[in-house]
Amino acid sequence: MRVVITGASGFLGRQLTAELLRTRNFSGWPITRLVLADRIAPPDDSVTGDSRVDVVHGDLHADLGAVFAEPVDVVFHLAAAVSAECEADFDLGWHANLDTTRALLEAARAQQVAGRGVPRLVFASSLAVYGADPALPLPPVVSEATPALPQSSYGVQKLMCEQLIGEYTRRGFIDGRVARLMTVAVRPGKPNAAASGFLSSIIREPLAGLPATCPVHPGLRVALASPRRTIDGLLRIAQAQRGSGPGQWEGRLPVNLPALTVTVADLLTALRRVAGDQAANLVTITPDPAIEALVGSWPAAFDNRRAARLGLHPDPSALSLIRDYLGTLSP
Amino acid sequence: MRVVITGASGFLGRQLTAELLRTRNFSGWPITRLVLADRIAPPDDSVTGDSRVDVVHGDLHADLGAVFAEPVDVVFHLAAAVSAECEADFDLGWHANLDTTRALLEAARAQQVAGRGVPRLVFASSLAVYGADPALPLPPVVSEATPALPQSSYGVQKLMCEQLIGEYTRRGFIDGRVARLMTVAVRPGKPNAAASGFLSSIIREPLAGLPATCPVHPGLRVALASPRRTIDGLLRIAQAQRGSGPGQWEGRLPVNLPALTVTVADLLTALRRVAGDQAANLVTITPDPAIEALVGSWPAAFDNRRAARLGLHPDPSALSLIRDYLGTLSP
Repeated sequence: MRVVITGASGFLGRQLTAELLRTRNFSGWPITRLVLADRIAPPDDSVTGDSRVDVVHGDLHADLGAVFAEPVDVVFHLAAAVSAECEADFDLGWHANLDTTRALLEAARAQQVAGRGVPRLVFASSLAVYGADPALPLPPVVSEATPALPQSSYGVQKLMCEQLIGEYTRRGFIDGRVARLMTVAVRPGKPNAAASGFLSSIIREPLAGLPATCPVHPGLRVALASPRRTIDGLLRIAQAQRGSGPGQWEGRLPVNLPALTVTVADLLTALRRVAGDQAANLVTITPDPAIEALVGSWPAAFDNRRAARLGLHPDPSALSLIRDYLGTLSP
Repeated sequence: MRVVITGASGFLGRQLTAELLRTRNFSGWPITRLVLADRIAPPDDSVTGDSRVDVVHGDLHADLGAVFAEPVDVVFHLAAAVSAECEADFDLGWHANLDTTRALLEAARAQQVAGRGVPRLVFASSLAVYGADPALPLPPVVSEATPALPQSSYGVQKLMCEQLIGEYTRRGFIDGRVARLMTVAVRPGKPNAAASGFLSSIIREPLAGLPATCPVHPGLRVALASPRRTIDGLLRIAQAQRGSGPGQWEGRLPVNLPALTVTVADLLTALRRVAGDQAANLVTITPDPAIEALVGSWPAAFDNRRAARLGLHPDPSALSLIRDYLGTLSP
């Protein structure tokens, strides 16, 4: 199996890389090549030194020739410009999210048309495809039957990519599967330009003894998933057989990865319980209307039944999110 | 007012042109220029001879410079490759429907950014954005709250354009309004490459003493609107003030134009009533699985309440569709 990860140097890309190198197989087939594509070079020598790994370092759109130089069996398409970037730079979002995905799909189609196999493609979409319109409020609990009404450039681009992937799948050019990711927390490392980044930093920074700013009111409800469950979800969806039974992938409808609904206050309470008052008091609440509007436009509560049919379940609690994060720090 | 119609040489474009030249105004403002853009030259000298009319004849994507040479106040964006064309030629559909619309929106954005005014843009989308997935069947009655799950290239492209228009509107580059058109019947003239074209030809051809083939089972239910009500809908939506009151246009949610639900058998019965057995017997039922699958994937029954708030109502009956058509033949 030749497996490709786009956005491989991002946080989820690195987690997925580590997991695939560890398990060494995909649906029981050995992974012979793992292609890591990203604008940013892979940060970890232990990965790039692995004899199975090929690095494609540069603009994905320009480098698709290298990615598809040999037949691709599976693509995890994680590369994206994130929400706040796309709000700040209108043109960047269309290029990085829409045009690059379309070019990737065209490369996959060319492979299929040339008789070199139908690539399986797992796309990391986002809960940001959901939102409310004055004439159509969000229901209290969102499911895959809820109409997608994105309220951000990022959400629009993700939804358009979902549609492209569905259509290329219907035509038989790819076997596409769309997973809508929840906000992933707690992320390690530095803050990124995602509007939701604070949901990690208000835990991560105080645990490291650093101050953190929370740009929303503590009553705001959010839909979260741990990195581990997010990676598990992507892998499960990628490896599912096509069919209509439990655990199988049917049709072209996206699946929402399972979500834990918590308030920001729940997170801060859990932080206080795990790390004490000194850590929790490092968080300052300073609402930022732009962040609050963007994150507040996303749904906070999900009907997780479609994910459950694939064997995927939400994290149990705010406390478990923090403990999961601490577990990755001291393995 | 400088008003642009793309796809102006198509059937709806010509009807809209005639109506705008007749009423001479838009929301009470005189129409000083009417720009007719199409790959096909306008067929009617009486139109091109009108001193208010400018013709932009060619590929819209290439000719946007001419369209936006002077500030555009209103665009009716009707230009599109139709459903069966897009199924037959995958690349054509993306170029004609997605890329051209995106280029049009970029030209509109450039106008806004240059301080030359925010164009109002009315987009002719389609009921083909709706469809069923194995995991999510179509409800018996479809409304704007029903998730769009297109089952054709054309439907996917229309949905992606809707999303683009919503996003350019949210950013303030345009004032976009999306109308989802029903199948328009009875259309005069020659059959086009739309999969739904038979819904006109099974009436039009027998009325002219010609045979016609019906490629679906007569029990198939369809959602129809007359040309007149379709044009009325586009004009009403274009001229609505922004606001949340009755008759006003709010937010970015598309509106489904009002639909009359009939079976193909209802149409044939009405034809028999209007034109007698001899005409009705000219129709041969020869199901074509491809057409049946495509047209059968579209919803047939609509909740028309959102359109009704704009003062738009469905045609009353199959009989009225035929009588409307006969009325246009003998004005």
